[in-house]
Amino acid sequence: MTRKKTDLSSIGEFKLIELISKDIKIKNKSTKKGIGDDAAILDYKKFQTVVTTDLLIEGIHFNLDYVPLKHLGYKSVTVNLSDVYAMNASPKQITVSIAVSNRFPLEAIEELYSGIKLACKKYNVDIVGGDTSSSMQGLIISITAIGEITDEKIVLRSTAKKNNLICVSGDLGAAYAGLQLLERERIIYKKNPEIQPILKGYDYILERQLKPEARKDIIKIFEELNIIPTSMIDISDGLSSEILHICKQSNKGCKIYEDKIPIAKETIDFANEINIDPTIIAMNGGEDYELLFTIDINDYDKIKNNPYISIIGQIDKSNEGQYLITRDGTAIKIEAQGWNTMNLL
Amino acid sequence: MTRKKTDLSSIGEFKLIELISKDIKIKNKSTKKGIGDDAAILDYKKFQTVVTTDLLIEGIHFNLDYVPLKHLGYKSVTVNLSDVYAMNASPKQITVSIAVSNRFPLEAIEELYSGIKLACKKYNVDIVGGDTSSSMQGLIISITAIGEITDEKIVLRSTAKKNNLICVSGDLGAAYAGLQLLERERIIYKKNPEIQPILKGYDYILERQLKPEARKDIIKIFEELNIIPTSMIDISDGLSSEILHICKQSNKGCKIYEDKIPIAKETIDFANEINIDPTIIAMNGGEDYELLFTIDINDYDKIKNNPYISIIGQIDKSNEGQYLITRDGTAIKIEAQGWNTMNLL
Repeated sequence: MTRKKTDLSSIGEFKLIELISKDIKIKNKSTKKGIGDDAAILDYKKFQTVVTTDLLIEGIHFNLDYVPLKHLGYKSVTVNLSDVYAMNASPKQITVSIAVSNRFPLEAIEELYSGIKLACKKYNVDIVGGDTSSSMQGLIISITAIGEITDEKIVLRSTAKKNNLICVSGDLGAAYAGLQLLERERIIYKKNPEIQPILKGYDYILERQLKPEARKDIIKIFEELNIIPTSMIDISDGLSSEILHICKQSNKGCKIYEDKIPIAKETIDFANEINIDPTIIAMNGGEDYELLFTIDINDYDKIKNNPYISIIGQIDKSNEGQYLITRDGTAIKIEAQGWNTMNLL
Repeated sequence: MTRKKTDLSSIGEFKLIELISKDIKIKNKSTKKGIGDDAAILDYKKFQTVVTTDLLIEGIHFNLDYVPLKHLGYKSVTVNLSDVYAMNASPKQITVSIAVSNRFPLEAIEELYSGIKLACKKYNVDIVGGDTSSSMQGLIISITAIGEITDEKIVLRSTAKKNNLICVSGDLGAAYAGLQLLERERIIYKKNPEIQPILKGYDYILERQLKPEARKDIIKIFEELNIIPTSMIDISDGLSSEILHICKQSNKGCKIYEDKIPIAKETIDFANEINIDPTIIAMNGGEDYELLFTIDINDYDKIKNNPYISIIGQIDKSNEGQYLITRDGTAIKIEAQGWNTMNLL
């Protein structure tokens, strides 16, 4: 099937904005005025406002060779919402700015927005503004998410206490495994376009990379179980980086136990296939968008049998340092990750 | 003088964020928690929240051949604040995301941020978050501004009434004249690097292009004179586009009188020099960041002698259309501008 392609220059900026905006309906009471003026107006009378932002660039944060535009739109939203949930808050609005080079037809932008809108629907979030423009090269997406929270429920990174239990939702490393799989198949395909990429049987790690969810359900569990974590962060760069953020900002040490880190069978299988230690992927892989949090030891009974939460370690005094305790009992110092390291390649 | 240049890869992401953040001090009571967590926390108990965002891309929105980085940082902030003032609101916080290619040394980013911070200081705005990453090519800046306003003072684009006076702050077209001057000198310099750019004597139009201010003072005048405009928008794309936004969203017609449009002597002189009608520059030039607003005719006496405000026309019934009335009395239909037209080249 050949799809029609509409040149963006034949539409112009205002028509494009109209097309993007036309089926956006306001869902939240706090969204007083959305798209269509110089700014959106939000009403948070009883709540604190939470705000976070992300900038995603083609070739750096995503590769359109293997990321479908709809998935990309979906993921652009969920990674932002994840930051709002990591404050224990509820996301309510987003702004979406995009810049595209002229190689993008209208249909590509509609595809991107269909993913953005799908995520907004699922997480009950309103699109209230944004910006559209040309780019010199590739696709650029900037999303700002805004949420609300009552004063007493705010959870920061800097408030972990000694003897707190370190917990993580879901499992780690799958998103990175999915990325490595896509990258491997892309290289094979580039060398020989006759060979179709083999992606069958890898559904779980692919979905974790291409269409990650934000852990709204975990925030709901906290509410239901009457737990307020003592500190929290979402895992975007990898467990190593994130636990160091919590420890350094809380001025604490920690022990993470290798055998407690939740890793899916599919991730372990793929790690074995490419000869990388699954623990390395889980510690440094990034893009899991799971929640890493600490709780008071008195809350242990509330979560001990929860299938979505794993207890992976404990918070220590600051002079005890930050360590991964391996299966054989060796203590390895946890090192920071960032730009220059494997997880953002 | 040769300045030292520090390679960004020698610093890493976390150190860069630390350097950027280190001298940021919170100025607003509503800024409860700024940089350093998954999201910022804002507190607007008695107010509505206003939010707006802009994405600026090297080669599209600015050209580093002639825009100093400090000015670019300053302008990136003021153009966003301008949108907040256009709601009759007060900006309080911004988030700043940047992406840079590896040709940018640390000193360039510090220069950019020195302009961003200068604007924040002047407008009393807090930087509360952001994102830093690599780009494939060039510099990308995404800024979201957040402000506050009481319910009864909100001014939309969609509420202009028949017989309202159309007003504009400052003067129009100078920013576009400045851009044309810079572009002319750039081309001459590229052809012959021996010839130094002639920018002397053009201070006003250059400053309007390189370092525009947001009209905080006009919002203050409204407060002092007890005026609430019936509609308002800031002039980023040009008077033509903006008055059409107001008219179409308010479902109204209008007449703008050519001889009432405020144009600075320096703009007229430069327009004559390059053989363009100054009115065309004023109507379509864009980037003036002046406020275009409508007021009830009963407020006429309050502003008639105000040196910062010009009355340039009136709002009509919708079936009367949107027209520019030229000096010789001809009515010319006002046409929309956008991406494809001169003002974003």
